[in-house]
Amino acid sequence: MHIGFIGLGKMGKAIAGLLLGNGHELTVWNRSQEAVQELVAKGARAVSAPSALGKSDILLSILANDAATRSVFLDQGVLEAAHPGLIHINLATVSVGLAKELAELHRRRKIGYVAAPVFGRPDAAAAGKLNIVVAGDPASVSKAQPILETIGQKCWPVGAQPENANVVKIAGNFMIASAIETMGEAVALVRSHGVKADAFLDILTNTLFAAPVYKLYGGLIAAQTYKPAGFTAPLGLKDVRLALAAADESNVPMPFANVLRDSLMELIATGGADDDWAAVAKVAARRAGL
Amino acid sequence: MHIGFIGLGKMGKAIAGLLLGNGHELTVWNRSQEAVQELVAKGARAVSAPSALGKSDILLSILANDAATRSVFLDQGVLEAAHPGLIHINLATVSVGLAKELAELHRRRKIGYVAAPVFGRPDAAAAGKLNIVVAGDPASVSKAQPILETIGQKCWPVGAQPENANVVKIAGNFMIASAIETMGEAVALVRSHGVKADAFLDILTNTLFAAPVYKLYGGLIAAQTYKPAGFTAPLGLKDVRLALAAADESNVPMPFANVLRDSLMELIATGGADDDWAAVAKVAARRAGL
Amino acid sequence: MHIGFIGLGKMGKAIAGLLLGNGHELTVWNRSQEAVQELVAKGARAVSAPSALGKSDILLSILANDAATRSVFLDQGVLEAAHPGLIHINLATVSVGLAKELAELHRRRKIGYVAAPVFGRPDAAAAGKLNIVVAGDPASVSKAQPILETIGQKCWPVGAQPENANVVKIAGNFMIASAIETMGEAVALVRSHGVKADAFLDILTNTLFAAPVYKLYGGLIAAQTYKPAGFTAPLGLKDVRLALAAADESNVPMPFANVLRDSLMELIATGGADDDWAAVAKVAARRAGL
Amino acid sequence: MHIGFIGLGKMGKAIAGLLLGNGHELTVWNRSQEAVQELVAKGARAVSAPSALGKSDILLSILANDAATRSVFLDQGVLEAAHPGLIHINLATVSVGLAKELAELHRRRKIGYVAAPVFGRPDAAAAGKLNIVVAGDPASVSKAQPILETIGQKCWPVGAQPENANVVKIAGNFMIASAIETMGEAVALVRSHGVKADAFLDILTNTLFAAPVYKLYGGLIAAQTYKPAGFTAPLGLKDVRLALAAADESNVPMPFANVLRDSLMELIATGGADDDWAAVAKVAARRAGL
Repeated sequence: MHIGFIGLGKMGKAIAGLLLGNGHELTVWNRSQEAVQELVAKGARAVSAPSALGKSDILLSILANDAATRSVFLDQGVLEAAHPGLIHINLATVSVGLAKELAELHRRRKIGYVAAPVFGRPDAAAAGKLNIVVAGDPASVSKAQPILETIGQKCWPVGAQPENANVVKIAGNFMIASAIETMGEAVALVRSHGVKADAFLDILTNTLFAAPVYKLYGGLIAAQTYKPAGFTAPLGLKDVRLALAAADESNVPMPFANVLRDSLMELIATGGADDDWAAVAKVAARRAGL
Repeated sequence: MHIGFIGLGKMGKAIAGLLLGNGHELTVWNRSQEAVQELVAKGARAVSAPSALGKSDILLSILANDAATRSVFLDQGVLEAAHPGLIHINLATVSVGLAKELAELHRRRKIGYVAAPVFGRPDAAAAGKLNIVVAGDPASVSKAQPILETIGQKCWPVGAQPENANVVKIAGNFMIASAIETMGEAVALVRSHGVKADAFLDILTNTLFAAPVYKLYGGLIAAQTYKPAGFTAPLGLKDVRLALAAADESNVPMPFANVLRDSLMELIATGGADDDWAAVAKVAARRAGL
Repeated sequence: MHIGFIGLGKMGKAIAGLLLGNGHELTVWNRSQEAVQELVAKGARAVSAPSALGKSDILLSILANDAATRSVFLDQGVLEAAHPGLIHINLATVSVGLAKELAELHRRRKIGYVAAPVFGRPDAAAAGKLNIVVAGDPASVSKAQPILETIGQKCWPVGAQPENANVVKIAGNFMIASAIETMGEAVALVRSHGVKADAFLDILTNTLFAAPVYKLYGGLIAAQTYKPAGFTAPLGLKDVRLALAAADESNVPMPFANVLRDSLMELIATGGADDDWAAVAKVAARRAGL
Repeated sequence: MHIGFIGLGKMGKAIAGLLLGNGHELTVWNRSQEAVQELVAKGARAVSAPSALGKSDILLSILANDAATRSVFLDQGVLEAAHPGLIHINLATVSVGLAKELAELHRRRKIGYVAAPVFGRPDAAAAGKLNIVVAGDPASVSKAQPILETIGQKCWPVGAQPENANVVKIAGNFMIASAIETMGEAVALVRSHGVKADAFLDILTNTLFAAPVYKLYGGLIAAQTYKPAGFTAPLGLKDVRLALAAADESNVPMPFANVLRDSLMELIATGGADDDWAAVAKVAARRAGL
């Protein structure tokens, strides 16, 4: 089985490395060559243009955003080169709008299309511990399943429309951002009354909020350690904007998402473009003069 | 040791029952007599006026709100009747303002005052599984400790100022409300794009958000079951207002708390006064025409 | 006719001065004596305790806030000293809650009570150019009318319940604050795209928004001149809080008022306590990194 | 002088009619032919494709939105057909992004480009009473000036970058929307306390807020008359989104704009798609259970 892989950012490298480690043969393409060489060193083959991967049986892609996805699949001709029967598994977080458009374009060309955005950071990816939200026509999903099970610890099917998986991923990232802002505001409140952030967060994240998201980001907020960023403010803002764009399409008011957009924009506009998105807690504190 | 107990609402009854079950002798008072009789049947002694409990060694109280607390301790003379040396353990969620005022009044009369608001529902209280946030002068806290360890599974000390415990409790409840609103908005978004609430929440509450608060309220939201209420919208609104009042005192902007206040007021103003506060998810859906 | 006058702040002095200038005999009281001496120099009589004014035919008061009003009328015994038949005209901006309470207390004592909060600054007051919102029982209003017509350029009756006038005044001040925040955000937007604040505001405040509020505050915002304050941020915050408190009473969500509260708190918490409330425009700019 | 005119919606028809009435010769194009015939009856010439207008000396256009503008000028070849020396006056409200893009495209082809968005409704347009915000290179603006002075009662120059005019127009529309929401919330507040909307608005719109925007929309809100719409909710939402998009470009938090977006989306999602955008006041009332 020929497996193609497009997009070797942090997440892409980890996933491609995992597949190679599991004995899969992989042909890879990436815009910058450095990452390609890393994977070649681990046994991957490389091609010089992404369209060369149109002959694969399975084509995985995980590009940074809508623009990169559009550029590679539409402008650089991957879709045009794809043979009918190919299954494209898109692991990236793209907009609901692009997800619908891609679904339609694949359908017309009789190419299988599976949206499979992932929850998890690069270390989870390298360990095969991702949670994968999966949507697409059942036949394609079924063919994608073995690969997805290699990549993730669990697949969560959410229907036959690929965009379903994307809206779930986008809504999930909105929930993470909300958890961060919530802690930021709560910490500003308790600090203004003389309670230390870590004393407060220690209680909550070990009882009612004993969940990975709260422990991870609660730790960053308590320590006020926002660099180096695991996930930068601009990336977080991009994801919040995806939520707002999806909400715009169907007229869904999301007042929390508005607050998140404003907090992240303020963070970026006031010097925090390199900070982890957890630094919205810093914005909450600054607004209170803390 | 003479232990007095004031306030036999759902939480108070459960805690008082637990203490009796653990062999403590308890003298109780409550505004309505029905709850008093229940406790007497379990071995408690009763007094006809709360001020009679001023002779206790330890006096526990858990009244519904600031007004009830003020009425019993100030207007009905409990504080006046309290002998120096008494330790008052206030388990209730009261405002930071009242907490400070009570701390000062106890100090003047040389009565020990320990703020010990609790996280947990009545069933957790009956089982001794509460999490208790504790603050007060070290000597008083030390005397309160054995009783508190009977009541809760864990005590979380947050300092010598009693109001510290209250601001932690209030900020914690704000976090719960934020989690509910977050799920409400996220569910409205995914539903507007054809994904079912339970499919979505099942993923999130079993992975990144695998915490008690998300599981409990996520379940209610997925099932759209808001009656009977575990915690009604007006009680939720009261707590959000405590957060906003505490924020007002120290000029801390809390945009999420504003949204929560509005959602809960809208819920109540449009017929949801008897709903569980999880029904803010219903408001989020209605705003989107779902 | 004996006219008493309580409260000689900026507004009070201007109004009392106007009445003296119109030939009325005035007996005044104020907490600080300096202002009293100014009025005595203009022909007023002074009393050493406010309760001495209980014998007046008409008693005007304009105190800074709820607390001052409560202190003078309840604690210092003015209401107790008031003879039945006295008409009390309260020109101050007080809360809806206090307005109702005062209305009830006056009613019980058969004292006339007219709520008559004013729109306008001290210079307008001195010139008899205030707009006065008037509510109260018709008989009392009718007796108050001649005095009110001396003070204001126009009286706007809004019903028989005194609190009606207060909610109108409070909602009006909310509208002013909203106009300021609106200009602040709009100016941040155009500035971020290279358009100067004055060029922008000049257009709007001379066309669609050619109203006194926009001209006055637009001028301050264009010039970024927030000191000396005509109306300080803390006073503005007090009034926004009155709106939110009135909204709380009847469960009315006011998302704009929430934003105003946060902007004013942020302004104050970050060093702007002496600024005019127009300086929320500064906050809007700072959030955008301008 | 050959004048071309593209876009005969309500505003376009009124402006084109005014120009004909002032003795100008006009060649017009519009997607639907009905409006074209109306103008031909008044003396205009018609062409069957917009690109035929590339030979004009002055080309005015006022299309409904970005998509229509893009379709006509880019896809249907108007820009390609335009001769160097032509002056294009774009009267429409388009996004800042499109404004920049168009400016660049015109520059490359050596076509003059003047952004001249207008404030005013069709009746003002027919009467030559529009306020026109003008930006563009001085030479082009100077050539456009005589035509613009025919159309408008006043031209407001805001610089040499065409997009400057668009951001001013967008920010101005944001201010109108804010004024509407402000009145909606204020009216909900006073109504909840027993004061009628018209009594309240009558005071404010005749004193501090005696400006056209407040009088017009205050009248609609007091009468609760939202149909037929002068400007529909979806058009209003489109304009608020233009403000948010412009704010997104430069990371400017605009919390009021967020509220406006949510209120308009809620209005549309709950059956108000044909209402005037003043009907956000209805949403404010409904949230309060009024």
